[in-house]
Amino acid sequence: MKELFGSPGKASGLCLRIGQCLFAAASLGVMASASGFSTATAFCYLIASMGLQLLWSFGLACFDIHALRLKRDLHNHVFVSLFVVGDWVTAMLSLAAACSSAGVIVLLLKDTNICRLDAKLSCNKYQISVALAFVSWFLLGISSYVMLWLAASA
Amino acid sequence: MKELFGSPGKASGLCLRIGQCLFAAASLGVMASASGFSTATAFCYLIASMGLQLLWSFGLACFDIHALRLKRDLHNHVFVSLFVVGDWVTAMLSLAAACSSAGVIVLLLKDTNICRLDAKLSCNKYQISVALAFVSWFLLGISSYVMLWLAASA
Repeated sequence: MKELFGSPGKASGLCLRIGQCLFAAASLGVMASASGFSTATAFCYLIASMGLQLLWSFGLACFDIHALRLKRDLHNHVFVSLFVVGDWVTAMLSLAAACSSAGVIVLLLKDTNICRLDAKLSCNKYQISVALAFVSWFLLGISSYVMLWLAASA
Repeated sequence: MKELFGSPGKASGLCLRIGQCLFAAASLGVMASASGFSTATAFCYLIASMGLQLLWSFGLACFDIHALRLKRDLHNHVFVSLFVVGDWVTAMLSLAAACSSAGVIVLLLKDTNICRLDAKLSCNKYQISVALAFVSWFLLGISSYVMLWLAASA
């Protein structure tokens, strides 16, 4: 298997995973602290999706640390196939959550006046949370591509 | 390059492209015929995105027909690289449009009573359009995976 930026068991891969964890955790935290998030299903779904991504990326980060410490090679078919499926499912769910939340935010802010009329909705926090979710998804997307490329080129 | 289901210049690839065209056109048509779609930016974005996907898939379907008739082989690096980038960009935009529209629909239907209160919104048509958009995205997703696999395994 080729050695690519962001491969499992490498320092670049570990950095990507830590970045995904941090941004997912930040997105989750900001959304959970925003008042009135439970009025929109999309925001609850964003929290669930970011929670899943946090767990997945944290697990793989631990795996990478383990591999780096013991200098183990994670480039075998079973691992890479598992990572590909998990990464892609998580990335799709994250993108779906971020986009549906973004759609709702645009509706609340631009298309209607709900944000201005309803003072208990903290629309700024929603926006920050979705922006963080997109960053987290982007980092996960890089990992997913690298994994698929590794699996296909094996 | 390997021969895979849905490769460019094959009958299976052509079927996928035609399916993408049909579902994208249906989604676009249903959404454009729904009254009050312009109140939500997400629905306008869905129309734009489905229009782009329709053009892209139609172009590639013509390309496939051309290759099938002249028995040309489209498995070269330049074509496949071009198809990979185009397919992935279009697929991401379609998924984003479908998800943001779905988020808005859930907000209108479940989280608030806007659909029941406002009779000029045709919420059923929005739902049909988004469902068709998801089918179209799914078919495009299959094509995208095949293209990336071809590009990576070359």
